[in-house]
Amino acid sequence: MEQKGLHVAVVGATGAVGQQMLQTLEKRNFPLAKLSLLSSERSAGKKVMFKGTEIEVQVAKPESFEGVHIALFSAGGSVSKQLAPEAVKRGAVVIDNTSAFRMEENVPLVVPEVNEEDLKWHNGIIANPNCSTIQMVVALEPIRKAFGLKRVIVSTYQAVSGAGAQALEELKTQAEKMLKGEEVTPEILPVKSESKHYPIAFNAIPQIDKFQENGFTFEEMKMINETKKIMHMPDLEVAATCVRIPVMTGHSESVYIEVEKEGVSVEEMKAVLKDAPGVVLQDDPSEQLYPMPLYAAGKNDVFVGRIRKDLNRETGFHLWIVSDNLLKGAAWNSVQIAESLLKLGLIQA
Amino acid sequence: MEQKGLHVAVVGATGAVGQQMLQTLEKRNFPLAKLSLLSSERSAGKKVMFKGTEIEVQVAKPESFEGVHIALFSAGGSVSKQLAPEAVKRGAVVIDNTSAFRMEENVPLVVPEVNEEDLKWHNGIIANPNCSTIQMVVALEPIRKAFGLKRVIVSTYQAVSGAGAQALEELKTQAEKMLKGEEVTPEILPVKSESKHYPIAFNAIPQIDKFQENGFTFEEMKMINETKKIMHMPDLEVAATCVRIPVMTGHSESVYIEVEKEGVSVEEMKAVLKDAPGVVLQDDPSEQLYPMPLYAAGKNDVFVGRIRKDLNRETGFHLWIVSDNLLKGAAWNSVQIAESLLKLGLIQA
Repeated sequence: MEQKGLHVAVVGATGAVGQQMLQTLEKRNFPLAKLSLLSSERSAGKKVMFKGTEIEVQVAKPESFEGVHIALFSAGGSVSKQLAPEAVKRGAVVIDNTSAFRMEENVPLVVPEVNEEDLKWHNGIIANPNCSTIQMVVALEPIRKAFGLKRVIVSTYQAVSGAGAQALEELKTQAEKMLKGEEVTPEILPVKSESKHYPIAFNAIPQIDKFQENGFTFEEMKMINETKKIMHMPDLEVAATCVRIPVMTGHSESVYIEVEKEGVSVEEMKAVLKDAPGVVLQDDPSEQLYPMPLYAAGKNDVFVGRIRKDLNRETGFHLWIVSDNLLKGAAWNSVQIAESLLKLGLIQA
Repeated sequence: MEQKGLHVAVVGATGAVGQQMLQTLEKRNFPLAKLSLLSSERSAGKKVMFKGTEIEVQVAKPESFEGVHIALFSAGGSVSKQLAPEAVKRGAVVIDNTSAFRMEENVPLVVPEVNEEDLKWHNGIIANPNCSTIQMVVALEPIRKAFGLKRVIVSTYQAVSGAGAQALEELKTQAEKMLKGEEVTPEILPVKSESKHYPIAFNAIPQIDKFQENGFTFEEMKMINETKKIMHMPDLEVAATCVRIPVMTGHSESVYIEVEKEGVSVEEMKAVLKDAPGVVLQDDPSEQLYPMPLYAAGKNDVFVGRIRKDLNRETGFHLWIVSDNLLKGAAWNSVQIAESLLKLGLIQA
């Protein structure tokens, strides 16, 4: 499929996020001249559909990136660490969906609604933030602009697809068995490489990714550190508790914030979010209108509702933020970065 | 079954909590002389097992409470409002599991580990707090005693059995259908009497009970007001966001607190909780040990883990609190109140 446009490579094309990337490129009618689908040896040879055509997935090697304009990586941190520099060496811009480079000083960490301008100083690699971080900063940035932001405390309700296609299969199989009263043997969640595994069906697991020395999990530290970097607020107070729940797709977040400005009303907060890019306000208690993951799945937007003023703190507010973790949390944000690169003239076919 | 002991009446004997009350009375070998099982007309005539004997459920009427020492009410607020005063008039002590009397000034609201002494000034009715409040205050009271308590922000992950047996059936049926790719028609959750219903299987619903004028739900306001009353801290800053998730039994809570005392370490916090009545400390990240609802179900304890010091606030801590909402959250706390009444000599056979 040679034509005017860009040569895009998708690394990890058969994974949960890779599949969503292909669907997003298709839906957005992204200007493609050529599409290379790459993966580890394990998945190479598989056939994947794109715009009605079957494409065979190739093993990702350094040479695979010759002539590639944009490489979308979503095949795990070790693959990115090994191959992203090789892609850059060959002239590609890498948009990396893993945590491999996110906190490196010379790598912009980008959510286009928040810090699109950071794309201008990229050095070949652009990092796509963690799913739970992305949806939160999309909602927080317009609030910061309007009222200032001092403090964030978030508790997450994260979907199983965020742990990959195998984990999602595990949820379904477990749920079926438990409904029949059968025993289950968890093998994947909370973290495949850890020694203990727990059922996720009809359960809540307060561990996402491995624990750090300070008692927080890596997922919690990602939310804390990435939020500060994306929002350019190194001193922002952020705390996170990350929990996996038996939802297939769509992360939810209960977020407490304190703003700088005094006297902000709930109506003013709603007005700011209503007009914010990437945000859909769903907040009308009288109509029982609030965001829910089952309805956010499949959509690119970040849904915000349950906005309340704290009953004790003049500058405190409570929010409920929901988005599709595979789309805005991963595939859509990555493709959106590619669109921003084009829009800003930072990449040419 | 006349014998030495108390005549106990269980109102709402066929409900989810009523059933747990009977099991708890049986397990604790509560000193019963007579057991009356009562219900609305709809459930009257049903047969219920107790200690291997089938007992027929009778319609609850004012006269049903003649000779009753303790009446355990769990049949909805309107039944309690109508019949609890009738039971008191006939000499019974009412332990009421509904929200009907909880905030009345002359009614003690009791969690024995926290404020057992309040039983001494009861006037016939003792209120059992809301399930999500009970487990939280059991964990917070030892912290308050040791370090003082200034502030609480809680986000809940509440089980479906808290909404009753019908809601639990709805979860199971929905999950089965959704796993087969079939359509579902929600009819009960989030609130049966409301106009809109949403699926709970593979979803998270940020509405428990009806909305109040201030944008908080009644469940959230219960957590806020009941915590202050039980802990005798009318000025405590409490905020709550209450969310239903597809767990059958066991409420989980992500709780942020600020204590009075400066310089408290995580180890000191753990030491206090380890020795606290009703609390089981489950907190060892190196062993992936933390509380989960699937494992808390069926147990009387309140499980606490994921204890971390806030990364910005010297007096801030994060906790994860899990307990069986039907047991410590309802049936066990009610029976425990009855045991306290006996222990304190406040009731005689």
